[in-house]
Amino acid sequence: MSAPGQGSGSRGGAAGPREFFTVRTVSEALTGFRAGRRTGVESVGLEEALGRIPAEPLAAPHALPGFARATVDGFAVRAADTYGASEGLPSYLDVAGEIRMGAPPEMAVTPGSAVAIATGAPLPPGADAVVKIEHTQAATPELLEILRPATPGEGMVRADEDAAPGAELVPAGRPLRAQDLGMLAAAGLVEVPVRARPRVTIVSTGDELVPSESQSLASGQVRDATAPALAALVHEAGGEPHFAGIVADDRDALSATLRTALPGSDVLVVSAGSSVGARDETAAAIASLGEPGIWCHGLAFRPGKPTLLADCGGVPVIGLPGNPRSALVVFRLIGLPIVRQVGGCTDPPPEPTVRARLARDLPSAAGRLDLVQVRVKDGEAVPLFGSSSLLSILTAADGYVVVPEAATGLAAGSEVEITLYR
Amino acid sequence: MSAPGQGSGSRGGAAGPREFFTVRTVSEALTGFRAGRRTGVESVGLEEALGRIPAEPLAAPHALPGFARATVDGFAVRAADTYGASEGLPSYLDVAGEIRMGAPPEMAVTPGSAVAIATGAPLPPGADAVVKIEHTQAATPELLEILRPATPGEGMVRADEDAAPGAELVPAGRPLRAQDLGMLAAAGLVEVPVRARPRVTIVSTGDELVPSESQSLASGQVRDATAPALAALVHEAGGEPHFAGIVADDRDALSATLRTALPGSDVLVVSAGSSVGARDETAAAIASLGEPGIWCHGLAFRPGKPTLLADCGGVPVIGLPGNPRSALVVFRLIGLPIVRQVGGCTDPPPEPTVRARLARDLPSAAGRLDLVQVRVKDGEAVPLFGSSSLLSILTAADGYVVVPEAATGLAAGSEVEITLYR
Repeated sequence: MSAPGQGSGSRGGAAGPREFFTVRTVSEALTGFRAGRRTGVESVGLEEALGRIPAEPLAAPHALPGFARATVDGFAVRAADTYGASEGLPSYLDVAGEIRMGAPPEMAVTPGSAVAIATGAPLPPGADAVVKIEHTQAATPELLEILRPATPGEGMVRADEDAAPGAELVPAGRPLRAQDLGMLAAAGLVEVPVRARPRVTIVSTGDELVPSESQSLASGQVRDATAPALAALVHEAGGEPHFAGIVADDRDALSATLRTALPGSDVLVVSAGSSVGARDETAAAIASLGEPGIWCHGLAFRPGKPTLLADCGGVPVIGLPGNPRSALVVFRLIGLPIVRQVGGCTDPPPEPTVRARLARDLPSAAGRLDLVQVRVKDGEAVPLFGSSSLLSILTAADGYVVVPEAATGLAAGSEVEITLYR
Repeated sequence: MSAPGQGSGSRGGAAGPREFFTVRTVSEALTGFRAGRRTGVESVGLEEALGRIPAEPLAAPHALPGFARATVDGFAVRAADTYGASEGLPSYLDVAGEIRMGAPPEMAVTPGSAVAIATGAPLPPGADAVVKIEHTQAATPELLEILRPATPGEGMVRADEDAAPGAELVPAGRPLRAQDLGMLAAAGLVEVPVRARPRVTIVSTGDELVPSESQSLASGQVRDATAPALAALVHEAGGEPHFAGIVADDRDALSATLRTALPGSDVLVVSAGSSVGARDETAAAIASLGEPGIWCHGLAFRPGKPTLLADCGGVPVIGLPGNPRSALVVFRLIGLPIVRQVGGCTDPPPEPTVRARLARDLPSAAGRLDLVQVRVKDGEAVPLFGSSSLLSILTAADGYVVVPEAATGLAAGSEVEITLYR
């Protein structure tokens, strides 16, 4: 990661970079705040490997399918024996037998002969094509009429047509998909070296917070909604969330919790208190955790300006805004890429999107990225506005629209791309 | 489910529906083959609930956040006390104290007074607005100047602004998203009634098949690539895959395996042998499983014509083509919706798509749906052709293009929508 205060986007005031007020754009954060840390490699069985990240490219240990196979039901032949065959003037071949499925061929195809074969069975030696049964006719049980010429390679696949020995079956860094697991199974690679899931420790702060299982609340108390939702996002990014509990708005208590959590974390996430004072305490606690320290104290981003990014001894630390909605929006935008990166994912899965007409103007400020929740109905995107403390805006949304940093807003009626939640 | 042979798309020949040859279109299958079966309801904790399907709408047990809260750092006031305030002529209010975070307010706001408050703290009785600290100025420690008028409701959220008591927090049938879990946590709903994961039993058939963990193969043998990939697709659809093993191409052996598997299955999937003979055996074994029986023996679909759909005593049974690639394509298209339906998912997550120009013509036949694997590069979709026995075409693909039933093909250069794998 870059050291704090080095970015061109530093807005520390006219007098130069004042570290305490370093504000970056979202683009700067996504490109400039890069974690060098990678999780270790572990081996998992295919049945556990969906979505996991191969730590290295995986190659075919031998040719696949491994033998030439029929791809139609019919007769294995030498193509040369069928040249010029037609319904009017068929080629006549002796039927030398039938290939058994799943066993080495017990006979060869010699000039002038054919062998019955089913889809998937191994081609007998001597054969270089399979004629579909529909293009043949039995003259007698032992004599076959070929009604169309076959070209070499027709009706079959070569022994190495699915993969040559040593060919790459799946790349490193891309989450394993269902078909990738099928290919690895075909190759007998049933244990896969993958990156360990990043351990993401979540710390909630706030004097007002009580655990979500609390059944009765005093006035002024709210249940911790952010931590369970962050844990779900960590799962989506392939990480393993660990909840370190709720800490009061007290710098010493927070420092102690963070120090304990840091060594066991690949990524450390602090959902900060919501007041300005609480945020200052969080910043101070994070700053004391290790070098090089805080990379930015804020993002030119709505909702989510009070977002803190730090590198504390090689562990990315993310200080999230206190409002649950802002915290989740920021973590989806900034935190998920960091978790994926630490987990070795270089080719994240595509996100569902849809295009729609904007139902209302979206004002923004140049240089600031705005992320606006929308409902999508009948090709129209309806922005959902309200306090960033309201989670209901996120649960009511189908997805979100981004107003880019370069824009000062988006006009009603313009076509926008919506990233859909799933 | 409808009984076999009732669809208008039956292509049983000119003489009328011959059950053995009932072929349906993909559209007919997706709309007409509907499973009535639903899995039972179980309770899971929030940390396990991501992606699970609520069995019923979940409502707020009380108002959320539960008390009026400040959304800015500043002073709780009576808005009426600030009317007409300006920098030139401020309103003067007595500072009556400060609200503690996370505890019931210890004081009220009386006419002519203000109380210091931080973001997230409970509004004291009597207050109906919070003035941002930036819009105030301390005349003396006990006397506050208000520099702008506040309107009632400004700088705060109401006690029921996130949810009124009884309001729906999440709907039934939609997979739970991260923000939904946050909302449920806020409401203290930490145990969620969800549909049990559908148990999907997978049976592989084929004399040529050996388990994927087999290290050495005889010529003619191939490892079972389909079952591990199907299991992954079942996971993607929220189901729980169970592998019932590999059965030889033998009707009695297959019938016995299917009869044993049926009672414990919510969905039963047979990846049939690849030859015509093996498919016939599979059809016969499935037909003997229970009433009403086979719904279609084939789909007007490439790749995947030899797809069998049946309802055996209320359990949807899917007979897949023997070629691994066809089997996976069919199961993604036809099987996933069935698994989701049985698991109560009425609102499946959106799939990622992208638009691109087709690099080559895609010929098709009217009335048949074609699904073509493509690579996407620089806005161009390059179709990947080859035998349907080749898995490498699926692993090389970024996604697929559908040539609809009504079309006889798609021309090179036309813009197509690609569904992307993730």
